[in-house]
Amino acid sequence: MIEGGVTAPLGFKANGAACGIKRSKKRDLSLIVSERRCDAAGVFTTNKVQAPCVIINKERLKDQKAQAIIANSGNANCMTGKSGFKNSELMARTAARSLKIKADDVLTASTGVIGKPLPIKKIMAALPALVKGLSRKGHEPAAHGILTTDRVIKETAAEFHVAGKKVRIGAMAKGAGMIHPQMELPPLKHATMLCFITTDAVIASTALRDALKQAVDKTFNLMTIDGDMSTNDMALILASGLAQNKRIVEKTKEFRAFCGVLEALCLALAKEMVKDAEGATKFVEILVRRAETREDARRVARTVAGSNLVKCALFGSDPNWGRIAAAVGYAPARVDPWKLHLYLGKELVLRNGGRVKKKAVILNRIFAHKNIKITVDLGLGRYGATAYTCDLSTNYVRINSAYRT
Amino acid sequence: MIEGGVTAPLGFKANGAACGIKRSKKRDLSLIVSERRCDAAGVFTTNKVQAPCVIINKERLKDQKAQAIIANSGNANCMTGKSGFKNSELMARTAARSLKIKADDVLTASTGVIGKPLPIKKIMAALPALVKGLSRKGHEPAAHGILTTDRVIKETAAEFHVAGKKVRIGAMAKGAGMIHPQMELPPLKHATMLCFITTDAVIASTALRDALKQAVDKTFNLMTIDGDMSTNDMALILASGLAQNKRIVEKTKEFRAFCGVLEALCLALAKEMVKDAEGATKFVEILVRRAETREDARRVARTVAGSNLVKCALFGSDPNWGRIAAAVGYAPARVDPWKLHLYLGKELVLRNGGRVKKKAVILNRIFAHKNIKITVDLGLGRYGATAYTCDLSTNYVRINSAYRT
Repeated sequence: MIEGGVTAPLGFKANGAACGIKRSKKRDLSLIVSERRCDAAGVFTTNKVQAPCVIINKERLKDQKAQAIIANSGNANCMTGKSGFKNSELMARTAARSLKIKADDVLTASTGVIGKPLPIKKIMAALPALVKGLSRKGHEPAAHGILTTDRVIKETAAEFHVAGKKVRIGAMAKGAGMIHPQMELPPLKHATMLCFITTDAVIASTALRDALKQAVDKTFNLMTIDGDMSTNDMALILASGLAQNKRIVEKTKEFRAFCGVLEALCLALAKEMVKDAEGATKFVEILVRRAETREDARRVARTVAGSNLVKCALFGSDPNWGRIAAAVGYAPARVDPWKLHLYLGKELVLRNGGRVKKKAVILNRIFAHKNIKITVDLGLGRYGATAYTCDLSTNYVRINSAYRT
Repeated sequence: MIEGGVTAPLGFKANGAACGIKRSKKRDLSLIVSERRCDAAGVFTTNKVQAPCVIINKERLKDQKAQAIIANSGNANCMTGKSGFKNSELMARTAARSLKIKADDVLTASTGVIGKPLPIKKIMAALPALVKGLSRKGHEPAAHGILTTDRVIKETAAEFHVAGKKVRIGAMAKGAGMIHPQMELPPLKHATMLCFITTDAVIASTALRDALKQAVDKTFNLMTIDGDMSTNDMALILASGLAQNKRIVEKTKEFRAFCGVLEALCLALAKEMVKDAEGATKFVEILVRRAETREDARRVARTVAGSNLVKCALFGSDPNWGRIAAAVGYAPARVDPWKLHLYLGKELVLRNGGRVKKKAVILNRIFAHKNIKITVDLGLGRYGATAYTCDLSTNYVRINSAYRT
């Protein structure tokens, strides 16, 4: 692990600024730029209502190239009609002009309130200074510029070796509410949570896409804060190729190493998002074991992680595991209650559908912790998955009942 | 509409008592009995984790006959292993002995905490007095005996004519949390929300099953309080046949009349449940129009009704309709954002994916009401559905973070 976030890899600069979208006067505009055109890939929300930035980025990534990411917070620019598309295009074109690169190589991202016109003039006015201030130290203001209800910035970076050459991956992310992403690679022919990843690795574009998809499936796509899938979720990766390593291609040791580091970084950011979730007081891992299929394991993990009643019990430190069993039962997966085992922490509380008597004081102590592991052993097969979630608190409700006001 | 709840139809008596399951000393045991063996039908939770009462009732209803319902609150008798089945059987057998009827004709229901052994001795000890106190006035104590976090009893009854003869239907229900029922008729060969329905109609058993299924699909199966499907949901109907009306069979005017009244009663109870939902301050109807299929209409309605963010906005009286659009977009149904219209009350806020500017004061006023209608016009087909829900309040979280303690 190294310092430097998205600017740790060679060739990247970044910056963040307050352009006036947020009434709080906090930073709300971020720019990440590579000194050369990058191989690029992205995964995007599967919500059928998609913001212009999502739709336009998918189009722009068909050539698997990009050089910059311009992102704003405080406004999702979604459900804003045709002018929403125009504004998203304008945001990219203005950034491209300031950067002296092609507009087609600029990706955009927006996060915030849905259904309000994007104050594009504020963004355009701020862009020249934002570009002027680009630097390798700019990863931190950039990480600030994409936050909404997040309390802390989320960034990370790592360095590893590919056939003797040093390679770096850096990343930043945001997301504290409307978090239940299911992101997919768009076909090439054709939260909000945001995650921007940079690397200086030399890597084949198919390998880059595959690595991103695998990492996202095991991390962001298994976290849930409130069950609400955003219209704007995206994870983007840009590869500058400046590390001069032996080109990474699929099904090699080097590819597996790249995937391993990328997944570790995404997992670290996913965990940070869940820890910083709106109103959250607990960080919870739902481990599912012995499911009949991989998909079943994922579904059970996500269903339990998404249960309001389980999350209220976690908030109240009440080890009411019956709610976990009920949620397992309504997951869209094969479940046999007579083979079901449940563990709170390491304590077995349900064995083959029958309760295992445990002292209340022991279970209460487990649920009083800030970090809680719940294991669901389905007893049916050999597949597993882990979902990441938090509790549902009175503060979550307070934050979200007055988000706009 | 008439007075009398479940004892309004001829031939039924009821009673409720406090047998000591609830620490609060409130009523926790209810009995409904018909003076003659009834045609009977039931729909049950589709949760794969099912309480013994659900599994045993499905077995007992294979002959489509029943004469009594014994129900307890304060304990769901679910995930209690083999002894849970023994206790449920014992509850039915003891009631049958006191009533001098066949145990196979006694249906059981339980609601409350999952995973705690049922205090069957308390129930057995209370049964003789409960039977002795059966009366036509007992509908009210019976309606009390099934409540958990409900604040008020829910009962209703109606009288109508079948070919000149008076026929009555009565019903009682409970449910304020863990409410997201999807109940189905079990095959004959083979929350918690509870609803017990009685009628003195003479009706064919297939017609009785069909009428129950239709009514439940349009009412209880379209309400959601917290998205958590219970292991114990059931709706039961008993028909004493004492009204001496011309036997009701399917596809007749009389059948449609029976279905109409039954659906109206179920809808009234579903609405009461949602109004009495844990912590709720708002009653909300999600009307979906012009879906491509009936199933799509139901899915969109239920998805919007289940969105935590939409429900927080309702609690905060914040007309943040972008969250509604996002939820429509992640519903498992065909959605075209460019054809999507949204209305808050009667105010159009989104037309063909573009916002319709409305004064904030107008929208704020609509969301400040206690009763709110949201219309989602998908613009794709000719099917509609209405889902019933409430807001998500800080009190909901408070209630459910300390349910057991």
